[in-house]
Amino acid sequence: GSGGAEGREIPSGEAEAEEFACPAHCTELSWRQNEQRRLGLFCDITLAFGGSAGPGSAPASAPAQPLREFRAHRSVLAAATEYFTPLLSGGFAESRSDRVELRKWSSEGGPDPETVEAVIGFMYTGAIRVSPGNVHEVLELADRFLLTRLKEFCGEFLKKKLNLSNCVAIHSLAHMYSLNQLALKAADMIRRNFYRVIQDEEFYTLPFHLIRDWLSDLEITVDSEEVLFETVLKWVQRNPDERERYFENLFKLLRLSQMKPTYLTRHVKSERLVSGNETCVKLVSEAVESHALRAENLHSGNLQHST
Amino acid sequence: GSGGAEGREIPSGEAEAEEFACPAHCTELSWRQNEQRRLGLFCDITLAFGGSAGPGSAPASAPAQPLREFRAHRSVLAAATEYFTPLLSGGFAESRSDRVELRKWSSEGGPDPETVEAVIGFMYTGAIRVSPGNVHEVLELADRFLLTRLKEFCGEFLKKKLNLSNCVAIHSLAHMYSLNQLALKAADMIRRNFYRVIQDEEFYTLPFHLIRDWLSDLEITVDSEEVLFETVLKWVQRNPDERERYFENLFKLLRLSQMKPTYLTRHVKSERLVSGNETCVKLVSEAVESHALRAENLHSGNLQHST
Repeated sequence: GSGGAEGREIPSGEAEAEEFACPAHCTELSWRQNEQRRLGLFCDITLAFGGSAGPGSAPASAPAQPLREFRAHRSVLAAATEYFTPLLSGGFAESRSDRVELRKWSSEGGPDPETVEAVIGFMYTGAIRVSPGNVHEVLELADRFLLTRLKEFCGEFLKKKLNLSNCVAIHSLAHMYSLNQLALKAADMIRRNFYRVIQDEEFYTLPFHLIRDWLSDLEITVDSEEVLFETVLKWVQRNPDERERYFENLFKLLRLSQMKPTYLTRHVKSERLVSGNETCVKLVSEAVESHALRAENLHSGNLQHST
Repeated sequence: GSGGAEGREIPSGEAEAEEFACPAHCTELSWRQNEQRRLGLFCDITLAFGGSAGPGSAPASAPAQPLREFRAHRSVLAAATEYFTPLLSGGFAESRSDRVELRKWSSEGGPDPETVEAVIGFMYTGAIRVSPGNVHEVLELADRFLLTRLKEFCGEFLKKKLNLSNCVAIHSLAHMYSLNQLALKAADMIRRNFYRVIQDEEFYTLPFHLIRDWLSDLEITVDSEEVLFETVLKWVQRNPDERERYFENLFKLLRLSQMKPTYLTRHVKSERLVSGNETCVKLVSEAVESHALRAENLHSGNLQHST
């Protein structure tokens, strides 16, 4: 060229390259691929969601649950989560067939189809509407599909919704899905309000290991130790066939020495689960004895003082 | 539940739903799909780029150019640009086959494979590196594939790189791809520096319609009208077979009355392209005549004044 600068820099090849990045393009791309999915365009895989007919259940006795099917793109699923990467590209049967069956969910018939649709939509677009009504299933799906960010969002969502009527359920969920911060916050609320929490039916749906943890917790607030005995009884009675075997373990956690002697002799000792268990009977006797000894000491002490 | 508020709001169902949007998810999705493309994972379409063997050229006489092939995902391409939507999902032959041939490019063998790779990458990720070396082909590809944002970026990029040695080429590009702002800015630079621009060989590669536009432009800056005559001559002589038929049209745009009589009679009149054209000869005669008449008026006027 004839050249000339006109007071500005002259281009000098690759040194003047520029990066152009357009995040809006990614977002639009995602939403359009999601739209294609809804229309069934270019889909190459079917996700089939259904009840818990795992390999363990006999196909003859348990009638096959109808599976809910969702068409999708392997490419998007594999890009959205590592859950699908090996499943779709590796040596699994699913990578050759065009169908993945997803069973074994917390609810009998598998997650609600609307929630599944929303979570698949999240895999495509990174956006989802979470409500108190769907957050449990969203969390279950997010956990299964390794959608870490969505799991964390559910944790934050539940943290904001935490109150006395749901803290037991939320603590249990948080435990199940390793949402540690949420678990800590829910546990703190439970501890500080234990006397109210145990009036709630939800508490009696907890598994043994959580009931054991709560009775071992030194910071739970209750009016009296007697209340805890009744709580243990009530928990066992909700499902005696399953839970009676845990009674001794839980009973050992009670601080019998803090119960009144009349309560021990009239209510605890006469309870069938106690009287039928050698260890429990012995613990009650020891508590009653220590009460008696303490009373005697106290009495003689008082006498000594008054002389 | 047993309820209780503890000084905070109580959840009330769907009213407390929350939107979760994670733009980083979209970006990551895009980059992972692009990575799949590079690895050939889940690809279901081939884009074949090649020379200009369009339907008009005889397959026997013109040897088939080797096509450069790029594997991709229909879903992404169709989501990235409307260019592919009908092509891949409609009734075209391409929507049934797994191959799209892309021919007819400005350069003989089609665009540089590295640039094609970069533009396909942009379709996937919304990101690209544009340099003075690839911007012309990026622009051509962006225009063909209806990537509006990328086209606009190229326009902005070229606007910043505009200088005297490239303004003619950039103006011509801007015209071709309807980058109006860029065209205006380049035109302005050309106008203000026309006397230098016409010393550049690039100017003589312009098509007739642009040369016509420039000669019609009232704001071009030149030292003399004579220079414009030489510019027209030079432009025609670069490709006489194609351009001689435009000579008369361009010659009519020259302001012969502003050329010196000696120049008109010695150089213009004797030029073969002028003397061989009746209209041109007539225009030169008229200009010489008007010069003579003016000189006479001027002379008599001077005489009148001096008496």
